[in-house]
Amino acid sequence: MREGAVTRDEARAMDAVDPLRGVRDRFTLPEGVIYLDGNSLGALPTATPARVAQTVEREWGEGLIRSWNDAGWIDAPARVAAGIAPLIGARADEVVVADSTSINLYKLLMAALAARPGRHVILTEPGNFPTDLYMAQGIAAGADVDVRAVPRDRIIEAIDDSVAVVMLTHVHYRTAEMFDMATVTAAAHRAGALMLWDLSHSAGAVPVDLDGAGADLAVGCGYKYLNGGPGAPAFLYVAERHRALLTSPLTGWMGHVAPFTFGDDYAPCATMRRWLCGTPPILGLAALEAGIATFDGVDRAALFAKGQALADLFVAEVEARCPSLTLASPRDAARRGSHISFAHDDAFPVMAALIDRGVIGDFRAPDLLRFGFTPLYTSFDDVWRAADILADVLDSGAWNDPRYRARGAVT
Amino acid sequence: MREGAVTRDEARAMDAVDPLRGVRDRFTLPEGVIYLDGNSLGALPTATPARVAQTVEREWGEGLIRSWNDAGWIDAPARVAAGIAPLIGARADEVVVADSTSINLYKLLMAALAARPGRHVILTEPGNFPTDLYMAQGIAAGADVDVRAVPRDRIIEAIDDSVAVVMLTHVHYRTAEMFDMATVTAAAHRAGALMLWDLSHSAGAVPVDLDGAGADLAVGCGYKYLNGGPGAPAFLYVAERHRALLTSPLTGWMGHVAPFTFGDDYAPCATMRRWLCGTPPILGLAALEAGIATFDGVDRAALFAKGQALADLFVAEVEARCPSLTLASPRDAARRGSHISFAHDDAFPVMAALIDRGVIGDFRAPDLLRFGFTPLYTSFDDVWRAADILADVLDSGAWNDPRYRARGAVT
Repeated sequence: MREGAVTRDEARAMDAVDPLRGVRDRFTLPEGVIYLDGNSLGALPTATPARVAQTVEREWGEGLIRSWNDAGWIDAPARVAAGIAPLIGARADEVVVADSTSINLYKLLMAALAARPGRHVILTEPGNFPTDLYMAQGIAAGADVDVRAVPRDRIIEAIDDSVAVVMLTHVHYRTAEMFDMATVTAAAHRAGALMLWDLSHSAGAVPVDLDGAGADLAVGCGYKYLNGGPGAPAFLYVAERHRALLTSPLTGWMGHVAPFTFGDDYAPCATMRRWLCGTPPILGLAALEAGIATFDGVDRAALFAKGQALADLFVAEVEARCPSLTLASPRDAARRGSHISFAHDDAFPVMAALIDRGVIGDFRAPDLLRFGFTPLYTSFDDVWRAADILADVLDSGAWNDPRYRARGAVT
Repeated sequence: MREGAVTRDEARAMDAVDPLRGVRDRFTLPEGVIYLDGNSLGALPTATPARVAQTVEREWGEGLIRSWNDAGWIDAPARVAAGIAPLIGARADEVVVADSTSINLYKLLMAALAARPGRHVILTEPGNFPTDLYMAQGIAAGADVDVRAVPRDRIIEAIDDSVAVVMLTHVHYRTAEMFDMATVTAAAHRAGALMLWDLSHSAGAVPVDLDGAGADLAVGCGYKYLNGGPGAPAFLYVAERHRALLTSPLTGWMGHVAPFTFGDDYAPCATMRRWLCGTPPILGLAALEAGIATFDGVDRAALFAKGQALADLFVAEVEARCPSLTLASPRDAARRGSHISFAHDDAFPVMAALIDRGVIGDFRAPDLLRFGFTPLYTSFDDVWRAADILADVLDSGAWNDPRYRARGAVT
């Protein structure tokens, strides 16, 4: 075995002085697993089972229909959003929790196109997260709209007066490359376009300052770094200056100014509730609220610094010990999110063998091993051991076992 | 007190011979409450807390990301839909669980308009459930589409060759009036229009035979008679003959033919999965699956007959004992759903006083007291006692207490 960048004792010493080490107790992690996939599905907060059980057994079972008022269900989309706002540099009244990231992209893209009449282009990059591209393509298929995909290093120069909205994912889901939000937003504004950020791989993982960057619109995911559970509801952001000007094309009753008057004509609510559509998913909202509560009282500068340090350690260990892997993420922590990808021609069976040994990252086609570092619960010792096991899988050739090449529905 | 139609002993005798009386044990109902609002939010199935806890603690907490395959999360939208299909006269491969009723209306209305080029009208009735009207209005605001609302007794004659799609709610949310699905569907087809049924107040409550009626499209709600919990995911139906021809305008990654290849170009799945958009809400799906399981092995003819008998008894008791109320639902059980509404000028405080006495129905503006009868768990004794307490509230004038006039957010 090749020597690593640090010893395991040195990694443990980093944990011993980590000011956030106690926060790991807010999560219930399975024995025998090193979980480096919180960027895909956050781990289970310890408080969540009781919170969900209360919602099911007491609020639903005993309160029944009365809980829409008595248990605050009707206010949950705004209340949970208020917990997300400080993580993304937004005011509480600029955020709401609703539907899925995909559907929120649709709402905001359609609203942006309506707000920029005469402009017909959604500008994005090839290789953006698929659902972002697909939602834009669905819009283009049904209207006089073009989706223009330009490599990320040429985005700014491509923003011209045909562009209604620039849609980019702040932290790339494969490489973790991070856009400079303020710079790109300013370029969009100079050309008269609106800026829509997808924060799915950012919120809770890296510093985000939507208001400070002058962003117009944003969406993000509840089940990654926000720990809201599988298929958690998503969020969306509309800068206060746009609130009264933009409306959702999905004009469901929960976005109505007075849904319980049951009138025949739609009129949007004045607040961010206008971006709701159907009845909110109460079980998902309860779990998401418990997920966001794992950030309570956590110093965000320390959190994000720890995320960078975890990833830096992983890069150093893997580069020292796994010469067959190629770093596919920025080396500079300031230019990336909180995950790291390495390329390998046989990434799929390598990841399968690694998961079989209790180190859970994920595979992203065609050739990436992806590892997420969630500083709320990942330790430096986790990182050291994950790199150690990865080196062993590669050195031993264990990944060549044919059973590691069988693919399931979700890979 | 006026004499009722039957005595309480007679009502209890009906329960004693009810072949479905044991099914009530599949639900956990709070002490001291007679719940007649299952048409708005179904009661808690006894099996649901353990099922949700398993999803949270074992599948999410221990299985983590692996549960997309290992716990069958990825198949949940189709698996849960297969349980709904027999309740609505559909094949399993014609139904999928996704998003909310409102969003599913949008998908199917947009797809129907695209499938009928040259036709620009969505035909519906005034007073349809608000979100149905609102979603159609949102579409009309952004496209060359008109929403034409025609009173229900003139719908059939109004279907002309400008109509792309007829959108009606099978059982009316206020009055419980029920359309003849086969007759209206045939009229739509004669004029070349597609037929979209909203089954929110039908599925699980009355016989529905979408395939038999030749229906094209349908949506419905998971949290009413299907007992899926607050804000449960909804379902949608597309007749098999249309499956390959219609596509969702909400082209999210979960509807892609191969979502985990992460390609840049959208291509719809060949199956009903094409109607999915974002990542499915797993906690909500787990609860909905447990809700639908409450129908397992229940004879549907007996179920629907009991629903009619419960409502008939309520009408008889209330008409005998509450002369200040006016029946606002069809007297003929064959022409209505499984709820009954009575009009009263002060319906709001009357319902508030009734709820305060443990009888939970709901108020629908401006003047309706609405009561739902869910034959899986409502007993004839429940119905008798509810009418008895309602008569007492009215006779005593108890509802005149000012505290019953204060309105919450949800009324």
